[in-house]
Amino acid sequence: MMEKPSTRDRIVVAGRRAMLEQGYEGTGIGPLLASVAVPKGSFYHFFASKEDFAAAVLKAYAEQYRQQRLELFTDASLSPLARIERHLVQVEHDSAAEAAVPGCLYGVLAQAAPGLGEELRAQLHGAFATWEQDLAALIAQAQQEGEVEGGLDPAETAAHLIDLYEGAVIRARAGDGPAAFARFRKFARATLQRGAGASRD
Amino acid sequence: MMEKPSTRDRIVVAGRRAMLEQGYEGTGIGPLLASVAVPKGSFYHFFASKEDFAAAVLKAYAEQYRQQRLELFTDASLSPLARIERHLVQVEHDSAAEAAVPGCLYGVLAQAAPGLGEELRAQLHGAFATWEQDLAALIAQAQQEGEVEGGLDPAETAAHLIDLYEGAVIRARAGDGPAAFARFRKFARATLQRGAGASRD
Repeated sequence: MMEKPSTRDRIVVAGRRAMLEQGYEGTGIGPLLASVAVPKGSFYHFFASKEDFAAAVLKAYAEQYRQQRLELFTDASLSPLARIERHLVQVEHDSAAEAAVPGCLYGVLAQAAPGLGEELRAQLHGAFATWEQDLAALIAQAQQEGEVEGGLDPAETAAHLIDLYEGAVIRARAGDGPAAFARFRKFARATLQRGAGASRD
Repeated sequence: MMEKPSTRDRIVVAGRRAMLEQGYEGTGIGPLLASVAVPKGSFYHFFASKEDFAAAVLKAYAEQYRQQRLELFTDASLSPLARIERHLVQVEHDSAAEAAVPGCLYGVLAQAAPGLGEELRAQLHGAFATWEQDLAALIAQAQQEGEVEGGLDPAETAAHLIDLYEGAVIRARAGDGPAAFARFRKFARATLQRGAGASRD
């Protein structure tokens, strides 16, 4: 039997969806609480501020996707490259399932970052860094199996794939829809297979 | 002698900076007008709504960068690939020069797109499409000169480079700073030089 979600959890779930659809600044606490029939006083019982609330929403989001990643990334029934491939598909699926429009909470908060406090910005940077590290470790495994071009730097390549995903979400929101994610997968695979080549940077 | 900017122009310039720094939803018309000492009545003399205002800001932004692109992209003193290379540097420079944090107005409005009307979303999609077409034509020229891998689809590759740039802006805002743009250039060059490889999409 499912436990009934607590009032705090219900606010966090509604806030996550609202931020994904309307952005951090576009999310009004008043309408949000009305949508889950929670009085304003309760909100300030749980959260000191809107930013404190966003930190809780980000924490829950990051923990859920970290858990999902760790399960997939250690799935020994798939080769390391097959796990990466599934991740490239999974991120589109998750972003579409979360809300009425594809979105990534990290990208949403990054867009709002100039107006956010140092603590929340550090939390956001840490969420990206954890994703990068998990993916870099998997890329290194795929290199050991000879499935991914050995000359690639795993950490940099992981960061690149995440950059590319965040860009695809932006383009999907701007009207490209699923085509943006198809491009993401195509070019991500090309990089993994063919390498980053010589750089003049 | 420079002409004195009109009141309308001053509001548009201030709105551009505010949206780049604070996002569309985070930009309040009241504080914006106070910052340029324009009474609220004047705003509604020029713009029917905040969204109508955003359309004017986007129009000015898109036209300025289109003009800049066309000048660079037709500069016969540089090879087509050298023009692409300069564009990859220029976009970071422009995004840094615009406001206190790196930003792209297209990305800002894309993040807010779910809450925007159809007309503004179409304008945004068109701005991305024009950028793609200009860049695709230049990539095709570089292919004719043998400077860029001939197997790449110019339109898809242009879209990819723009995805990657938008992702880099997100990551720069989330704390990666200039490193995000260095990654953007490195992987963009690698794709142009080595191609997109076979795709399973």
